[in-house]
Amino acid sequence: MSLTRIHNLSISLDGFATGEPQSAEAPFGHAGERLHQWMFATRFWDAGGTSGVDDALAERHSHGIGAEIMGANKFGPPGWANDPDWKGWWGPNPPFHTPTFVLTHHPQPSMAMEGGTTFHFLDAAPAEALEAAREAADGLDVRIGGGATVVRDFLAAGLVDHMHLVQVPIVLGRGVRLWDGLEALEDAYDVEAVSSPSGVTHLTFTRKAS
Amino acid sequence: MSLTRIHNLSISLDGFATGEPQSAEAPFGHAGERLHQWMFATRFWDAGGTSGVDDALAERHSHGIGAEIMGANKFGPPGWANDPDWKGWWGPNPPFHTPTFVLTHHPQPSMAMEGGTTFHFLDAAPAEALEAAREAADGLDVRIGGGATVVRDFLAAGLVDHMHLVQVPIVLGRGVRLWDGLEALEDAYDVEAVSSPSGVTHLTFTRKAS
Repeated sequence: MSLTRIHNLSISLDGFATGEPQSAEAPFGHAGERLHQWMFATRFWDAGGTSGVDDALAERHSHGIGAEIMGANKFGPPGWANDPDWKGWWGPNPPFHTPTFVLTHHPQPSMAMEGGTTFHFLDAAPAEALEAAREAADGLDVRIGGGATVVRDFLAAGLVDHMHLVQVPIVLGRGVRLWDGLEALEDAYDVEAVSSPSGVTHLTFTRKAS
Repeated sequence: MSLTRIHNLSISLDGFATGEPQSAEAPFGHAGERLHQWMFATRFWDAGGTSGVDDALAERHSHGIGAEIMGANKFGPPGWANDPDWKGWWGPNPPFHTPTFVLTHHPQPSMAMEGGTTFHFLDAAPAEALEAAREAADGLDVRIGGGATVVRDFLAAGLVDHMHLVQVPIVLGRGVRLWDGLEALEDAYDVEAVSSPSGVTHLTFTRKAS
């Protein structure tokens, strides 16, 4: 069965998945790279990196995924929809390698990139977007790629089977908060917390059998 | 040197140290006892309890403390200051066993209880309250007993040397949030995260040498 999964979503102690303001120069605002240093240190990111628990959990991002859904704020900085040359942050060969659905109120023609990534642009609610992505995934799983607003919308709609969060020991104070509107999320999930020697804590949410 | 310490402050994944509404029947509001079940399961709380990492960290609450400072919302439910018979939640022999300073805008005469606890009532800013408590502690440490608002005020004032938080894997959604206004708290502290087999994650903040 095709699952809906979230991986490597990094949050601060106070639950922000990005700082502010987001811009072309600072995609994560004042958070900079601090939320993702744990990942940059792993073999998943860099061949010379670590191969422990951080790496084992990070690399699951790539396995068995047939499509991704991301929010407009992940695809580009504010205003990207008005830039006809904008093709995402990732250059000619984006790291998705599957159909990738960008949720936006300004849909545009699809973009076929190198390496198997094709960006599709949808103005759609979570369930509808998931239906399109699942069909494109051809039996494999669908990854909800973020950012926090999109993840929150899919969680609130009850559409997520597996979520891996990484809590980084910093207090951002401002930005986009993951947790708002998710009261009693634990009722639907088994939650496991594992602290890593790197200082982060991995939180794994597995949907309970219904 | 006398330190200012916080112990066993339990928060949800979304950072709430209590739910809402707080009342005589539900001191932690809709959180109920869920934030503190980890502690009730330890030997610190119950002689038949566990004696692992949860217990080791919990019992530091009691060691080397000469005074406590708490907020008005910890001492009683809304309106307690208008009840001449209210002497706290804890019965004739409260578990503090030291001078205990209650921050309130409605000061009243001190109350000497059994077992060494004397409640003093202060309408004072954090630094002033700490000065009074430190003098009463006679060389021992001062515990900031909570709730979240008082802890946040002391952290924001830079008055805390050691803080032990316990993150419980539930999403409360509403209540009193610890983290507001504490951006970049990690600049002043070494932060350690340790997940326990019980499911909670202990966060220890130790003030950096200046």
